[in-house]
Amino acid sequence: MLIWYQIMTDTALANLENLYRIFTVPEAPDSTLGAVDQAISENVADFLQKHIVALERSLDDIENDFTASKIPEEPSFVSDYAEFVKQKLVAQSVHTAAPGFVGHMTSALPYFMLPLSRIMTALNQNLVKVETSKAFTPMERQVLAMMHHLIYGQTEGFYNQWIHDSQSALGAFCSGGTIANTTALWVARNHLCAPDGEFSGIAKAGLFKSLQHLGCDGLAILVSRRAHYSFGKAVDLLGIGRDNLVLVDIDYDSRIDMQALRAEYLKLQQQNIRPLAVVGIAGTTETGHVDPLNELADFAAEIGCHFHVDAAWGGPTLFSDRHRHLLAGIERADSVTIDAHKQLYVPMGAGMVLFKDPLALSAIEHHANYILRHGSKDLGSHTLEGSRPGMAMLVHAGLSIIGRKGYELLIDLGIERARHFADLINQHPNFELITAPELNILTYRYNPAWLQDKMGQLDKDQQQKVNCLLDLVVQEVQKRQREAGKTFVSRTRLLSALYPDGQISVFRSVLANPLTTDEILSVVLQEQCAIVKETEVQNLMTEIEQICG
Amino acid sequence: MLIWYQIMTDTALANLENLYRIFTVPEAPDSTLGAVDQAISENVADFLQKHIVALERSLDDIENDFTASKIPEEPSFVSDYAEFVKQKLVAQSVHTAAPGFVGHMTSALPYFMLPLSRIMTALNQNLVKVETSKAFTPMERQVLAMMHHLIYGQTEGFYNQWIHDSQSALGAFCSGGTIANTTALWVARNHLCAPDGEFSGIAKAGLFKSLQHLGCDGLAILVSRRAHYSFGKAVDLLGIGRDNLVLVDIDYDSRIDMQALRAEYLKLQQQNIRPLAVVGIAGTTETGHVDPLNELADFAAEIGCHFHVDAAWGGPTLFSDRHRHLLAGIERADSVTIDAHKQLYVPMGAGMVLFKDPLALSAIEHHANYILRHGSKDLGSHTLEGSRPGMAMLVHAGLSIIGRKGYELLIDLGIERARHFADLINQHPNFELITAPELNILTYRYNPAWLQDKMGQLDKDQQQKVNCLLDLVVQEVQKRQREAGKTFVSRTRLLSALYPDGQISVFRSVLANPLTTDEILSVVLQEQCAIVKETEVQNLMTEIEQICG
Repeated sequence: MLIWYQIMTDTALANLENLYRIFTVPEAPDSTLGAVDQAISENVADFLQKHIVALERSLDDIENDFTASKIPEEPSFVSDYAEFVKQKLVAQSVHTAAPGFVGHMTSALPYFMLPLSRIMTALNQNLVKVETSKAFTPMERQVLAMMHHLIYGQTEGFYNQWIHDSQSALGAFCSGGTIANTTALWVARNHLCAPDGEFSGIAKAGLFKSLQHLGCDGLAILVSRRAHYSFGKAVDLLGIGRDNLVLVDIDYDSRIDMQALRAEYLKLQQQNIRPLAVVGIAGTTETGHVDPLNELADFAAEIGCHFHVDAAWGGPTLFSDRHRHLLAGIERADSVTIDAHKQLYVPMGAGMVLFKDPLALSAIEHHANYILRHGSKDLGSHTLEGSRPGMAMLVHAGLSIIGRKGYELLIDLGIERARHFADLINQHPNFELITAPELNILTYRYNPAWLQDKMGQLDKDQQQKVNCLLDLVVQEVQKRQREAGKTFVSRTRLLSALYPDGQISVFRSVLANPLTTDEILSVVLQEQCAIVKETEVQNLMTEIEQICG
Repeated sequence: MLIWYQIMTDTALANLENLYRIFTVPEAPDSTLGAVDQAISENVADFLQKHIVALERSLDDIENDFTASKIPEEPSFVSDYAEFVKQKLVAQSVHTAAPGFVGHMTSALPYFMLPLSRIMTALNQNLVKVETSKAFTPMERQVLAMMHHLIYGQTEGFYNQWIHDSQSALGAFCSGGTIANTTALWVARNHLCAPDGEFSGIAKAGLFKSLQHLGCDGLAILVSRRAHYSFGKAVDLLGIGRDNLVLVDIDYDSRIDMQALRAEYLKLQQQNIRPLAVVGIAGTTETGHVDPLNELADFAAEIGCHFHVDAAWGGPTLFSDRHRHLLAGIERADSVTIDAHKQLYVPMGAGMVLFKDPLALSAIEHHANYILRHGSKDLGSHTLEGSRPGMAMLVHAGLSIIGRKGYELLIDLGIERARHFADLINQHPNFELITAPELNILTYRYNPAWLQDKMGQLDKDQQQKVNCLLDLVVQEVQKRQREAGKTFVSRTRLLSALYPDGQISVFRSVLANPLTTDEILSVVLQEQCAIVKETEVQNLMTEIEQICG
């Protein structure tokens, strides 16, 4: 016993004992938290269904439960807190796993993910270094090799050489697509501005001296205007600047327009701006379309710059023998982003970027005295993040348990269902398909057949007014549908080939939950039609009728 | 039923059914995975103790279990995979929660963290936007406010105004300290290079044009040489360059030397380089020391630049009435990093950066069409990461259940125990304390009393040889102790005031696990003494004796 303990008051000693208890005494199975835990173990779908309140409370109202800004002085009982979690947090969560919620990129999770997550949390490994992760490091390296193989399909010899090589990494595991895309562009930037003679390279010398060395006035990224917003963040972060994120026009199929791309490239040349990377999207966030990756690869080779593919969403399409051709050319990318928390059905917080060249990541390699020593196999020497949890374990589990063929089924199912939903929309008298699904995402809007017919006869001004009102209808319907909590689609604004004069608001539907049935999709449309009949929305439709005369 | 299903073969249909099963049928309690899950629920400490194999297998050997680079074609049984996890992954993990493992920054977790983690995973919320997180968004905002209050202690009115304000965020929740530090420097950079007249600001125009606008030849970060390696990554990423990360000398107490700081600043001025941020460290990763934050705040104010404090480790010292004075001046920082997966006892993957000015994060604000719309309360508009899990829930739980006073006890306990360990080392005939604990981290090395006495009598050359050999002793002892798997300290290399001629290797001990007892610390030293007696290590000591004559 230390002297300090001896002078502790009785209360302090009691507190200390209570403190030890929370580290040493498990929650009893019949405690509030134990019971919740048990209920989730036994049937998570049932638990979520029972405890998440469908009808939405307003956010202002929910905020009232989270207003205290001072950390409570006194400890509280776990059981009291568990009650709070049940009533205030769980009840007011979003039922992301619900089969009728077809607007998110999250889905129901395979059951085994939950107990495996608990094992991961209990082990609490830190993937930054072998010393705090041991088997988790080779496991994560294997996951990276498997995903690399899915994309690049190199020989067994290649993987034998590189999978556990201490000087390199086939990719970087991270918390999500944003970090993955940023890592890819970081690597591309550092390669372009690599050490060269007297010049020590951008990692050391910085961007300013790099551009002076290259003799150019800026660096640029070329990507379609369907690019994920993470590219905007990445160019800001990397010092490239949002002005140099060139958002190239798209063609009628929502894919990057190669002619427009060439035109933008010429403009950059005239401004003495060096293209740093050409980015192809394999499954845009908003519409799920895939850029012509082979053409982009040709173009990137021609102008001699890094070719990155953002396959955060669409990457797992590679599992499908039937559909992988849609991503043809991805194997020519220098780097590819894939999110595991999307179509690998892993819980939130798992992304990856894979590099064709096993040495590419050396452009951002870093070391420290107490970890990441030279020659160590610590994964942290090649990642943007530092301390990281063992999420790769859940990807490893998915790949092992579901297998290539299982994921193939999931992919095929999603694409098939999206096509079926597109048919439903096309056949429905009240809806207009805006972007057909190439993968498993589509967009549409409320626009009755009579109005669709009429649109061609309206003048520009009238058409614009009608579109503005339809935007309001879409926004209002989406909001009310969400609030009612039975089914859910998301919404976005995009430029459609059908209405090239300006962006329109659309419903966005993502068909990745294997529990979503065709019947549920019919219900989604029925609900939307019912909401349109509500007075406020009907008033908007009346305004439209008046414009159309 | 779709046509496609109708042409499916029987095998395919069977596969489909199996696939549905993994999404709909819970693991049975008596299944392998169910049993593991149950065992962890009942007694995680016991589970880890039983299933993690103490004796270390070599990494090469472990890698043999993770060599396949092809994703398995066929699905496999959950039970088979659960066996694999038990035998190959869990068994070969690091027992980060073991009370005798005092070298990591991870500790035992409070029991309630596990069932709450499961709730978080089951809900699978995505914090990027309200639409996929609902109550989790105000909850995370509350956590940020509470941590903000802990540091800055603003008025209730201040928090009422800002806590749920849609235009701002009091900080950014993220996966860990690296992202937190990077976010802070990103904000600082964008503030320094803010829009100004014709100049559109760095976010748009990029770093090259910013420096042209500012009329300087570079930006720099000033921080002590004890800085976490994440700052090196951050300056690389942000385009500032590692050459411009000025690692300032430290004084005999491991704190930044203010005179050296001024000298470095003058050098920067001569080179026309603009200081972007002065960084203070509140608990260095290697030795746990705290920079003189008030002096740094004065200096930053004097030269008019951003003042960031990296309190990833030491931040929670603020909970302690007895010790918070050690961090005096932190409330003057423009931004502060705190890791929750360190001394808030939350599982891996939870960091935060707080900003004094609620509008500071607007420097990196971003929006998109389908989420993060202007005026929304989506947290994703102010974070480096995109999709993120609801880890803030576990911080919320810790703050609520443990309370300020509970954390205070944990902090006081760790500091007290570190001091006791320092006493043990000082009194021990075979060890030399290298850095005394200011917080709860210390470093020491094997260096018998007779040799310590002798050191002063040796010439420079001899002293250097002895230190090199002692380095090897430390490295070998640390490695063997780790491999034996009973207790663990980490190691690093640092410049000690005692031996100013070059870096030496030292054991590093982190006293944050409340289950670590004084007895265990004695065992750590006993084990090290026993390892020194092993032939290979003893040979090194014999060499040293020969040098000393």
